[in-house]
Amino acid sequence: MIIIMKRNASDTQVNNVVARVEQRGCHVHLSEGEERVIIGVVGNGRPIDPVQFERMSGVERAVPVLRPFKLASREFHPQDTIVKINGVSVGGKELVVMAGPCAVEDRDQILEAAHAVKGAGAKALRGGAFKPRTSPYSFQGLGTEGLKLLAAAREETGLPVVTEVMAPEMVPLVSTYADILQIGARNMQNYALLHAVGEAQRPVLLKRGMMSTMEELLMAAEYILSHGNDRVILCERGIRTFEPYTRNTIDINAVPLLKILTHLPVIVDPSHGTGKRELVAPVSRAAVAAGADGLIIEVHPHPEEAMSDGAQSLRPEQFRELMDGLQRVAEAVDRTL
Amino acid sequence: MIIIMKRNASDTQVNNVVARVEQRGCHVHLSEGEERVIIGVVGNGRPIDPVQFERMSGVERAVPVLRPFKLASREFHPQDTIVKINGVSVGGKELVVMAGPCAVEDRDQILEAAHAVKGAGAKALRGGAFKPRTSPYSFQGLGTEGLKLLAAAREETGLPVVTEVMAPEMVPLVSTYADILQIGARNMQNYALLHAVGEAQRPVLLKRGMMSTMEELLMAAEYILSHGNDRVILCERGIRTFEPYTRNTIDINAVPLLKILTHLPVIVDPSHGTGKRELVAPVSRAAVAAGADGLIIEVHPHPEEAMSDGAQSLRPEQFRELMDGLQRVAEAVDRTL
Amino acid sequence: MIIIMKRNASDTQVNNVVARVEQRGCHVHLSEGEERVIIGVVGNGRPIDPVQFERMSGVERAVPVLRPFKLASREFHPQDTIVKINGVSVGGKELVVMAGPCAVEDRDQILEAAHAVKGAGAKALRGGAFKPRTSPYSFQGLGTEGLKLLAAAREETGLPVVTEVMAPEMVPLVSTYADILQIGARNMQNYALLHAVGEAQRPVLLKRGMMSTMEELLMAAEYILSHGNDRVILCERGIRTFEPYTRNTIDINAVPLLKILTHLPVIVDPSHGTGKRELVAPVSRAAVAAGADGLIIEVHPHPEEAMSDGAQSLRPEQFRELMDGLQRVAEAVDRTL
Amino acid sequence: MIIIMKRNASDTQVNNVVARVEQRGCHVHLSEGEERVIIGVVGNGRPIDPVQFERMSGVERAVPVLRPFKLASREFHPQDTIVKINGVSVGGKELVVMAGPCAVEDRDQILEAAHAVKGAGAKALRGGAFKPRTSPYSFQGLGTEGLKLLAAAREETGLPVVTEVMAPEMVPLVSTYADILQIGARNMQNYALLHAVGEAQRPVLLKRGMMSTMEELLMAAEYILSHGNDRVILCERGIRTFEPYTRNTIDINAVPLLKILTHLPVIVDPSHGTGKRELVAPVSRAAVAAGADGLIIEVHPHPEEAMSDGAQSLRPEQFRELMDGLQRVAEAVDRTL
Repeated sequence: MIIIMKRNASDTQVNNVVARVEQRGCHVHLSEGEERVIIGVVGNGRPIDPVQFERMSGVERAVPVLRPFKLASREFHPQDTIVKINGVSVGGKELVVMAGPCAVEDRDQILEAAHAVKGAGAKALRGGAFKPRTSPYSFQGLGTEGLKLLAAAREETGLPVVTEVMAPEMVPLVSTYADILQIGARNMQNYALLHAVGEAQRPVLLKRGMMSTMEELLMAAEYILSHGNDRVILCERGIRTFEPYTRNTIDINAVPLLKILTHLPVIVDPSHGTGKRELVAPVSRAAVAAGADGLIIEVHPHPEEAMSDGAQSLRPEQFRELMDGLQRVAEAVDRTL
Repeated sequence: MIIIMKRNASDTQVNNVVARVEQRGCHVHLSEGEERVIIGVVGNGRPIDPVQFERMSGVERAVPVLRPFKLASREFHPQDTIVKINGVSVGGKELVVMAGPCAVEDRDQILEAAHAVKGAGAKALRGGAFKPRTSPYSFQGLGTEGLKLLAAAREETGLPVVTEVMAPEMVPLVSTYADILQIGARNMQNYALLHAVGEAQRPVLLKRGMMSTMEELLMAAEYILSHGNDRVILCERGIRTFEPYTRNTIDINAVPLLKILTHLPVIVDPSHGTGKRELVAPVSRAAVAAGADGLIIEVHPHPEEAMSDGAQSLRPEQFRELMDGLQRVAEAVDRTL
Repeated sequence: MIIIMKRNASDTQVNNVVARVEQRGCHVHLSEGEERVIIGVVGNGRPIDPVQFERMSGVERAVPVLRPFKLASREFHPQDTIVKINGVSVGGKELVVMAGPCAVEDRDQILEAAHAVKGAGAKALRGGAFKPRTSPYSFQGLGTEGLKLLAAAREETGLPVVTEVMAPEMVPLVSTYADILQIGARNMQNYALLHAVGEAQRPVLLKRGMMSTMEELLMAAEYILSHGNDRVILCERGIRTFEPYTRNTIDINAVPLLKILTHLPVIVDPSHGTGKRELVAPVSRAAVAAGADGLIIEVHPHPEEAMSDGAQSLRPEQFRELMDGLQRVAEAVDRTL
Repeated sequence: MIIIMKRNASDTQVNNVVARVEQRGCHVHLSEGEERVIIGVVGNGRPIDPVQFERMSGVERAVPVLRPFKLASREFHPQDTIVKINGVSVGGKELVVMAGPCAVEDRDQILEAAHAVKGAGAKALRGGAFKPRTSPYSFQGLGTEGLKLLAAAREETGLPVVTEVMAPEMVPLVSTYADILQIGARNMQNYALLHAVGEAQRPVLLKRGMMSTMEELLMAAEYILSHGNDRVILCERGIRTFEPYTRNTIDINAVPLLKILTHLPVIVDPSHGTGKRELVAPVSRAAVAAGADGLIIEVHPHPEEAMSDGAQSLRPEQFRELMDGLQRVAEAVDRTL
């Protein structure tokens, strides 16, 4: 960290800053310019919060030199992390496509969806049992009944199941039925929940908040990792921008940049990331071409009857077509599907 | 709601939409133009989710005519709601200023702060016992010990206490000590938590998410109201914009517009909304001039030693000056302080 | 357009709106609900500005049904527009890659760059002679001298030249030397300039404003088209978001959506859209996989000495590698390079 | 400026950076930590572009310590600049309210508006003769005829006239008729235009771009100042945010912060900044309470017939009421009106 003192900072103010740096077990390099003093902090490997210093009198700014995340960083863990779930590996050469309906609606719907996506090459089944909804008057999901139907679909098809958990006290229940715990975009900074899944025995699919930065996403992953769970999959699902023609804007830059910054697998959700059925296939191809390790895609046997997010769900035959096109792009970037 | 059919929508598609509208207990007005059919939906007073219709085949767009919130709307409840807490009224002619440190640090700090803000005219004491922090390595608050210290400060000064609750299972504990439950900006769409405070016997201070719209804020209030708690205070605390010189951007337009849209009291947090000590006083004056019902301000007896957010905390004497200036602006808009 | 009257709108107010609609040569469909009157406007094919009606008393909202652009729309012109420039076609099956330095610096630099990019397969040479710079103290480009050097590079290599024009009175001068006139992102809504290039005899490369919507981009194209120039190439170059790790965020959704909305060719600028050399290749592959008709890429023979934007410029050998990888992705989506 | 080298930077890379710093006439302070080398640059008073260094090999980041603007900065020019225009002073103790219609429509309209706003206490007349419009099919203003009508209104009322200039070649024409040249938000980074008004003999009202930062606004002012025109008035007119209920979001924080950063006067445009007639008065009061030096407000004698922006224009009697309320707030912050 670099601490830039104000132009007129007194010696006492400089000394106070130096003393606090040394209290934290760090060393100091002083650089006294004609205009102001600059204090270089040589750390002990643990990130330091610059805000602690910015509030001291005489300080103009404190600029971190190291990233504030450690366990999630590529520097700390150079090899790719490969997350294994019941025989499926996320983060290796083979791309993993997770697919299924936005919400579990009934037994027929989820079984039909599960067979369809498996037939087309999906490696995991997605489906919401507890749904976060902006309006208290909207369908909130089937709850525990939905979890049981997901488990039944796994039994029939062998596909591992990914589903959202919305509150810390629900983690044990959802872990009983699900193979991967999904943290939704609205809960990316729900620290009580991150703590709880950090102590769970299940891999976590962590969705980027719709207005969060990559650093905030990696800090949320750091919460989970620091509580002992090292099986974290990151998911770019679109950010909020000023573009009203699409529901969200997929941050395609994030895919290769996250792969540089972190060792964790990165997948993309083109369904929420576009909100439009006709954009799901081209954006899926783009994600794979940019280096994503997988995709999570909404597929519904009868999207026009879907109880949520029907406008962005693919029909099974559209999903099969998408998988065919994807295979060609995967090969062009030396991946398999 | 208005449903706009696609240019080439078939009669069957139009009929399907009409049938679904009527299933929902609403009436239809058909308008068949030369280019396309428009379906006007005459509701039964309950909001309808336009997405249900946008996913039907043949539909181009569905445009809501009514706002999606009801209990929170000024139309439903024309009189101002006045929230009463231990003798303090929020939402009436008298402005209410809540003040205190960002985090409770120790007994001396919170008592010193409580006496100082009371002496300057504050009507409630703020202070965090559980702190949501971006980094797992930052100070997370004193927890239950902090709640006890807040209660001790109330005992000494008579000031009601407002503090944040971060998880549904913590609502009973925090309610034991606090007079007002604060929902932080990062939790504005934590629906499990909104549900829990909706069933609590305490008023709620609901902070606008840092990237949320007014409609999303009012929908979050609707969650709380619809679970039976009608004592909700809204708080504008700044939104994320592209401006790096300030921590957030206070949406001053939101103050008079929320007062038009809803009957709930609206207060402003100029400390988080600016992130800079020197902007707190002028922005406080602006908030009152725009019609805010109160303010929540960070005051710390020794901000340079504060364990969080010291850069935006006022010293007690700065707070007294601010209150003096505020009084004159309050009178200029026919309010008292 | 649909005009939604206020709940308590009087008959006179409704009649005034109807009269104004009919003055504009349109027809009206009235729908009188229990709560409010809805007026459907059946147009005469020309877009109508809803704001004209929103300001009338008694009107709550006016919702356009048609898009506000016409000449640029796919509905008006279903076939793909192919822009031809000196033997190069943009918008057909073959992808077009334009490449070269951010700014023209001297004769050696631009000639070396031109030969290098031609050798690697680029079809046009980019280079700035007039540079829009945030600071008046930064290098502003070589001006007319730069235009002459670009023309010299075209002479030697046969590559058509694309360069920015920044003011209406410069259009004739720049047209003398350049094959394609570039409108920069900061000038996307400089209407005097759009008017001027609309009357020029040169194709236009129109960059999306860094905070503009797709509709605003298409309205800017509409300005150019409506002044008689139908050779417009759109360029997605990244939008401003809250992500500080990258200079801009490429809106990858925009690529397939623009191809649906308009007949004009769409290319992508991964250099400005990421600001980071190491992201240019993966994002280029993503753009092609999403359906872009081409790319515009910064290549500098010695990026560490570049006078502007060196951090995002590729070296010639990096560009050749990029072109090799791109070829494979192009084939995977049935395009050639 | 601080230059942070990469962890593994070689001595040669460090030496190259040092050499370039010294070429620029600056001194260097080297700080060699265990992890990396930090280079402090002691400047010669002129801002340096950090990008020049970030592109050098071995450099991780370059962090400016000084602001990139100089002539506009409060440090360079500690006293408030007071801009004088035909007997009116902007930036002193007296607030200046400029008012009038969005667009000049005809002789009767502009004269009626001018008399009305003068009667209510306005000190200058606003009105657009050349209108920047998103759509080529919208009303573009009366042009030169509009300028003549503005001059006629000045003759009758004595009010100085402020109107927009949209292209460099129009500056002489507009200067013939107008007292203050307005640069619109969409042109804030139209550098050819900034250059042209920098050489004009008229004060400039510079509007902040709708998605620009304060630093970008101050850099645009620096362009004008550096070309010799020191009579620049800054205008906060609302920025684009995710809030759809208002047209823009007034950045109220910017008012006191700009007053700290710069010596130039700062006024606020609550009409464009809210887009809603009912918010203009409370936001005007907020602007004055926050320390603005004036306001620019849309007033139209018959807003329901206005040819542009009628939804946000006040009627003359609403404007008189606003001025009455404003007087009380002005006194509360020791200003006069």
